[in-house]
Amino acid sequence: MFDKIKVIGFDADDTLWVNETYFRDTEAVFGKLLSGYETPNKIDQELFKKEIENLEIYGYGVKGFVLSMVESAIELSNGTISAEIIEEILNLGKQMLSKPVELLDGVTEVLEALYGKFTLIVLTKGDLLDQKRKLEKSNLSGYFHHIEVMTEKSEKDYGEVLKHLDIQPEEFLMVGNSLKSDVLPLLKMGSNAVHVPFHITWAHEKVSEKVVGETNIVTLSSLKELLNYV
Amino acid sequence: MFDKIKVIGFDADDTLWVNETYFRDTEAVFGKLLSGYETPNKIDQELFKKEIENLEIYGYGVKGFVLSMVESAIELSNGTISAEIIEEILNLGKQMLSKPVELLDGVTEVLEALYGKFTLIVLTKGDLLDQKRKLEKSNLSGYFHHIEVMTEKSEKDYGEVLKHLDIQPEEFLMVGNSLKSDVLPLLKMGSNAVHVPFHITWAHEKVSEKVVGETNIVTLSSLKELLNYV
Repeated sequence: MFDKIKVIGFDADDTLWVNETYFRDTEAVFGKLLSGYETPNKIDQELFKKEIENLEIYGYGVKGFVLSMVESAIELSNGTISAEIIEEILNLGKQMLSKPVELLDGVTEVLEALYGKFTLIVLTKGDLLDQKRKLEKSNLSGYFHHIEVMTEKSEKDYGEVLKHLDIQPEEFLMVGNSLKSDVLPLLKMGSNAVHVPFHITWAHEKVSEKVVGETNIVTLSSLKELLNYV
Repeated sequence: MFDKIKVIGFDADDTLWVNETYFRDTEAVFGKLLSGYETPNKIDQELFKKEIENLEIYGYGVKGFVLSMVESAIELSNGTISAEIIEEILNLGKQMLSKPVELLDGVTEVLEALYGKFTLIVLTKGDLLDQKRKLEKSNLSGYFHHIEVMTEKSEKDYGEVLKHLDIQPEEFLMVGNSLKSDVLPLLKMGSNAVHVPFHITWAHEKVSEKVVGETNIVTLSSLKELLNYV
């Protein structure tokens, strides 16, 4: 079914390696640091609201997340948060940026099998330096022609990538864990995509059943199944 | 002298538009916010030290700068800084990210004259989202084939850019305000560069007289003079 494919784009976070888990773990520690001021549920809600509010100005990635945590801590404490807790929040961010990269199941095997048959690229949102650093740490960079860090993953953004690659939509296949960012925009523009869900999804990346229901989507239970399709 | 040039790369900050001035202005406000704890000179020194210390983990750009200001504020105050001042620091960052773009003298005129004769690209360090946003705000994006946000500007990084562009070093000309980032690496690799100094340079981008003295450098007093060379 994917017989015209020349280039395969892989999302990075939660497709090649673990990411969302680290955000959840950090949110849990943040909840504990702020537990004197609000309930865990309220802290979660306010942090998420702040992240979305700041997304346009900060973009995706750890640094913007840390800045949003600091801002939320000040607001949730009505301006009484201590410098000590702010410092702990900064350190949480530094820990996230220094984590080793934990590859998902089957990633190396799949890239090994596809390498040389297709041009493989990484298409990811997030912070430029952080994503390049993770690719280095992953020891996967040899498989990829290049990495492109995108500010957004809309049809327009993918259109620019395809133009740059000088290929037609039907010659491209995107593989990723986010229906909203890695699958739906591609299907809408007549390109190809497969969905490899990760066990947790950031609320901002979730899409309603209604949107998904109208489209035929190939969903894999593991990246390894990709080899049955290409 | 630049007769083989096919592609011209422009640095962005302090080459196409004002940037360093905003960092200096923000540092001055930061100094005032912290004036109860240290002398202006000490505050400046400590912030710069913190920025360099964090450069590897945060990279270039406003978000990392804000995180370094928060960290410095905590240290300079021995952990007694108020949430109110931290909040003001976060707001300084948001103001920097929301500033209109102020083009430098002659930029539009030069791009207009070169457009169509050369492939023009933007090669800049900094934050991906912020730099793309500034390019949009500048109304210059139509002149450029694309923008490449680089994590560093070493010979290796420029080598990758040239490989990607599929051109030889002698077919490329870089134009920028930083001797260290925009000029010296290019000259070392047998490529071309011209230096258009901005009236202020971040300490981290400064190079010693000794390094510069050994190399023949074309220095322009204004970007407009570029038209005398290409």
